[in-house]
Amino acid sequence: MIKIRIQLTIVITLIALFNFSCDNKLNNGENNGQNTLSGEIKSDDNFNESQVYVSKNSYETDLELKHTFDNTKVKNIILLIGDGMGPAQVYSGKTANKGNLFLDHFQIVGKSKTNSSDSYITDSAAGATAFSTGEKTYNGAIGVDPNGKPLETILEIAEDNGLSTGLVATSTITHATPASFIAHQPERSMHEEIAADFLKTDIDVFLGGGRKYFKSRKDKRNLLEELENKGYNLLLKPEELQGNLKGKVAGLFADDEMDKYPARGEFLPTATEKALSLLSKNEKGFFLMVEGSQIDWGGHDNDLAYVINEFNDFDRSIGVALKFASQNEGTLVIVTADHETGGLTLISGDLTEGKVEAKFSTDYHTGVPVQVYAYGPQQSLFLGSYENTAIFSKMMEAFGF
Amino acid sequence: MIKIRIQLTIVITLIALFNFSCDNKLNNGENNGQNTLSGEIKSDDNFNESQVYVSKNSYETDLELKHTFDNTKVKNIILLIGDGMGPAQVYSGKTANKGNLFLDHFQIVGKSKTNSSDSYITDSAAGATAFSTGEKTYNGAIGVDPNGKPLETILEIAEDNGLSTGLVATSTITHATPASFIAHQPERSMHEEIAADFLKTDIDVFLGGGRKYFKSRKDKRNLLEELENKGYNLLLKPEELQGNLKGKVAGLFADDEMDKYPARGEFLPTATEKALSLLSKNEKGFFLMVEGSQIDWGGHDNDLAYVINEFNDFDRSIGVALKFASQNEGTLVIVTADHETGGLTLISGDLTEGKVEAKFSTDYHTGVPVQVYAYGPQQSLFLGSYENTAIFSKMMEAFGF
Repeated sequence: MIKIRIQLTIVITLIALFNFSCDNKLNNGENNGQNTLSGEIKSDDNFNESQVYVSKNSYETDLELKHTFDNTKVKNIILLIGDGMGPAQVYSGKTANKGNLFLDHFQIVGKSKTNSSDSYITDSAAGATAFSTGEKTYNGAIGVDPNGKPLETILEIAEDNGLSTGLVATSTITHATPASFIAHQPERSMHEEIAADFLKTDIDVFLGGGRKYFKSRKDKRNLLEELENKGYNLLLKPEELQGNLKGKVAGLFADDEMDKYPARGEFLPTATEKALSLLSKNEKGFFLMVEGSQIDWGGHDNDLAYVINEFNDFDRSIGVALKFASQNEGTLVIVTADHETGGLTLISGDLTEGKVEAKFSTDYHTGVPVQVYAYGPQQSLFLGSYENTAIFSKMMEAFGF
Repeated sequence: MIKIRIQLTIVITLIALFNFSCDNKLNNGENNGQNTLSGEIKSDDNFNESQVYVSKNSYETDLELKHTFDNTKVKNIILLIGDGMGPAQVYSGKTANKGNLFLDHFQIVGKSKTNSSDSYITDSAAGATAFSTGEKTYNGAIGVDPNGKPLETILEIAEDNGLSTGLVATSTITHATPASFIAHQPERSMHEEIAADFLKTDIDVFLGGGRKYFKSRKDKRNLLEELENKGYNLLLKPEELQGNLKGKVAGLFADDEMDKYPARGEFLPTATEKALSLLSKNEKGFFLMVEGSQIDWGGHDNDLAYVINEFNDFDRSIGVALKFASQNEGTLVIVTADHETGGLTLISGDLTEGKVEAKFSTDYHTGVPVQVYAYGPQQSLFLGSYENTAIFSKMMEAFGF
C-alpha cells in the first residue's frame, strides 16, 4: 500500500531570454590554416524558452590515427581541460559542426566523479587541484589540501624529473584551473599571490591572459621584469606567437582574460601548437595543460552561442594535440572537464544545418559526471568510472613516476 | 569587429513544484534477497525550484568480475535498455545509493548518437529499432524502415540461428522498446497488431505488462489461448514467477503497464533472473533484451523520485545480468539507453546521505548522446563514439552472424 500526499505549490519565475545576433568578423591573422566556426542566435517562436544557434560554417576533423600502442613508453602528456564541458556541451558543438568533432577520434572514454571535499558540486579550483595533485580539496583551494597545506603538483613533479612543462588558457593564467597546476594558495581570488608563485617554478611556457596580476601589483613588484631577468621571452601581443620562438616563453596577451571566441581568433589552437613546438625540444619529454576556459563562462552566462563557439575552439585545439601525438611517439593526450556548467539541455536541432536548440536550467555548475578521453600509449588506464583525483594517479602511472 | 544586438525579453513562467512525500511499504514477496531502495521527496526552501530526494536505504553492489576475456566466443547477449537513461539519471541513482552502482563495474564505455531518421530527438520506437535492426527509421516505427518495410531484428536472426530469445519489460510488452525487437508495424500505438506479431515468432520468454492487448481485442482473437495452444506456459500473477518454470513462458502480469517501483516489488531483477535461467538451457546460446521502461516515464512526469527508484531497480537488474555473466562464460552484457528524458540537472546532493537535489528542464526527450556499457567477450567492440544503429552491427559481429 502506498500513501502519497501531494502538495502543489506554484511559483512564478522570471526567465530572461536573450535574442542574440552576432555579426562576426573573424580574426584571420591567427587562423593558422584551419576552418573557423561561428554562428548566430535567432529567436524561435516555437521554442520561446530555448535559444537557437545556427552555425555559419564548419571545420574539417579528418585525422589518420593509429589506435594500438603496444608497449610504447609515455614521454609526453597533453592534458586538455574543457572547463564546464559536460556531455551536452560536447554534443551541441558536434551538432553545430554538422556531426564532426576531433573529440570523436578517441576510442577510450572513462567517467570522472567530480565532487570536491566540501561539496557535491565542485568549483574549478578544487576540480583542477584534484587533477594536479590527486587530492580532493575544498572549493576555492589552489594546489593545497583541505587544511591549506601545499600539495606537489604533477607539473612540479614533471619538472623534478627533468621534463619541460607548460600551461595554456584563454582565461587569465592565474585563474583557478591553470593556477592549480603551479600555485599553492588558500583562495582562488588571490591572483597576485598566484602570479608570484609562477616565479618560484621553472615552468617553460605559459600562454594566456592576466598581465595585470604580474604588472600592476599591490606589492609594487614588476613580475614581467622579474620573468625577463629569469630568462623568459616575454610576449605581450598575440601576433608575437607567430614569431620564431625559443627558450622559456611567458605570453601574457591581455590585462585580464582573453577575448571571447571569435574575437580572439585562433589563439587557443595556435598557442597549443606553439607550446608543443617549444616543449618537444626536451628529449626527456613534457607535461602540458591546455584549458578551454570559457566554455564554463558561456554556461554561467546561459549563452548558447558562447558555449558552442568556445567548445569548438577547444575541439580544434584537441585536434592540434592529436595531430602532434600522431607525429610524436610516446605522447598521451587526455581530454576531460572539471564539471558541467549550466544544466544544458538539447531540445532540438539539425545535424545537416548545424542548428542547435537548447535551454539552460541553472547558471552554476552541476553534478553530472564528466568524460575522460584518452589517446596514446597507456590509454587504457583511463577506462572505467573513477574519482577526478584518479586522473592524477593515472597520469603518474603513465609517466612511470 | 563584433556587432552584437541584444534584445531582452522577459517571460513569466509557471513552475509547478510537487512537494511529494511517499510512505512506501515495500512488496517483499518478490524481494529475492536483495536490499531495496526507496526514498522521499521533501520540500526545501533553499532550492524552491528543485526537487529533493533522500534515500531511505541502499543496496550492495559488490561483485567479483574478471575483465579480460582472451578469445572467448560470444554465446549469449543480454542487452539492457534504460529508457530515458542519460548521464544525470545514472548519477542521481548513484548518489541515492550512496555512491555505488552495479553499472560502475563496467570498464568499457562507448557513446551512442541517438537521432532518428526524421528527428534530432528520437522516440523509443525509432531508438529500439536502431538497436534491433541497425537502421535509422522514423519516430513511431516498430521494426520497419522509413518506407514501412519490415526489417529482420536481431531477436529474429538469433532465432534463425537456433538461439533462444527473450524480452522483459516493466511497460506493456507491446510498448515501443520491446515491440521493436519482435514486431513490424508502422506505428507504435498499434498495440493489438504488435501483440499478434508475438504469435508469428518462436520467442521463448516474454515477461511484462499488456495483457489486455492479448485478451480484449477488437478482432475477438484470444491470444492468451493461442499462446497456450502454441505451447507457452502462461503466467498472469507476478508470484507465479517464483515457481519452477520450464519450456516457453509468456508472463503478462498486468492488463496495462506494471506498477511503478516500489509498488511492483522486485519484479524486474526477478524476471531478469528467471528469463536467464530459462534461456540458458539452450546450449547454442540466447539473446535477451531487458528494459527499465519507466525511467523514461519518471522523466516525462518530471518526478525525481520516480526516476531514481526506476533507475536503481534497473541497476539491480544489471547486477543480475553481470552475476550471470560472471558464472556463464561467453556472455556479453550491454547496457545502453535510447535517449535522455527530462533534461535532468543535478543542482546539489550528498553522497553520504543519499540525497539528490535536481531540476528538470523539459517533459520530453533530449538530444544528449547516451552511454553504451559493455562487459564480456568482445566488449572492446563497443568502445568509441558511434550511431545507435552500430549497436546492432556490433552485436551481430559479437555473435559471429
